[in-house]
Amino acid sequence: MSDVATTRRSRITPECEAELYAAVLDLLREVGYDAVTMDAVAARTRSSKATLYRQWGGKAELVVRAMRSQKPGGLADIDTGSLRGDLHAIAVREDDCAMEQNAALMRALAMAVHTNDDLRQAFKELLVEPEMEEFRRMVRRAVDRGEVRPDNPALEYLVHMLVGAFATRTLIDDLPPTRDFLLSYIDAVVLPALGVPLH
Amino acid sequence: MSDVATTRRSRITPECEAELYAAVLDLLREVGYDAVTMDAVAARTRSSKATLYRQWGGKAELVVRAMRSQKPGGLADIDTGSLRGDLHAIAVREDDCAMEQNAALMRALAMAVHTNDDLRQAFKELLVEPEMEEFRRMVRRAVDRGEVRPDNPALEYLVHMLVGAFATRTLIDDLPPTRDFLLSYIDAVVLPALGVPLH
Repeated sequence: MSDVATTRRSRITPECEAELYAAVLDLLREVGYDAVTMDAVAARTRSSKATLYRQWGGKAELVVRAMRSQKPGGLADIDTGSLRGDLHAIAVREDDCAMEQNAALMRALAMAVHTNDDLRQAFKELLVEPEMEEFRRMVRRAVDRGEVRPDNPALEYLVHMLVGAFATRTLIDDLPPTRDFLLSYIDAVVLPALGVPLH
Repeated sequence: MSDVATTRRSRITPECEAELYAAVLDLLREVGYDAVTMDAVAARTRSSKATLYRQWGGKAELVVRAMRSQKPGGLADIDTGSLRGDLHAIAVREDDCAMEQNAALMRALAMAVHTNDDLRQAFKELLVEPEMEEFRRMVRRAVDRGEVRPDNPALEYLVHMLVGAFATRTLIDDLPPTRDFLLSYIDAVVLPALGVPLH
């Protein structure tokens, strides 16, 4: 999917693409995934539906690529020399306002993933997998430095721990996730579970 | 809210109540919270809308009480003598099939909570708070037994850890939460974060 899509997408400028993605996310926030239609996207962005289908293949890929465009720089750029430093750098990538907006979009999408097979596939292929791969690389560096034992059973749950805290904060505490919450959770839960000392 | 509701609910038999709750959950699964109406519940259960409103006050309380009726026995009955025993007992309360169905219902409700104030209030008051209180009691016993230090910073995140794993399992791994997954997660993440040795 991605090679073909890269070729297709190269036909529009980065500026137009950013504008179109922003419009898609506005729509997603306003009406939810199921009610977003290619017609509505075309109308909102003054594009032709044919162009949209040619460039993105369909709604699922368009929405997931729009989500991905919102993500602050990939984890690949983060390498502070310690696992704690890397995880803290992830937590402060976004300011609290961006984090809250992102959480709302992720909720909307996470729900829709369960009832739309093509969305689930695009979500997995374009969002979850690349991010998991970056986490694996980050963890491998920590193991190589001797910070984490290679057989620590919490290693395979790193993303569950992080995404879980992010996802449940609002539900449990009626508060949006914030940088301070994530930093505190990383020090209280994630690092101790991995056996990494805090100092 | 709950005192009044208890008085009101006593007018119907437990059998009728169980049947009505099952019908409400069927509807919730079929059409989602926003599309569930008191008209539809009345039609499905051959009740009058007036009765429904008199007994439950409104849709939010009816749906949350229906959800609560599905939960296997409260945590209050669990007291195995160790925190690991208690957490494992929670993980095996439901079989995998019930757990998957519950996860789907919780997802539907968790989404709707963000856009319905009355649902959020009922959800918090009737589901989250009572459960949190039971968790606090379980943790207090573990602290009293000397299993967990009273100032362990992970204590306040116990529910985030557990609900987080439950909620993210499907999203990250494309697999439903199961007993084995929860047991493994408790031993790999929750107990080490709390400083509880596994043996």
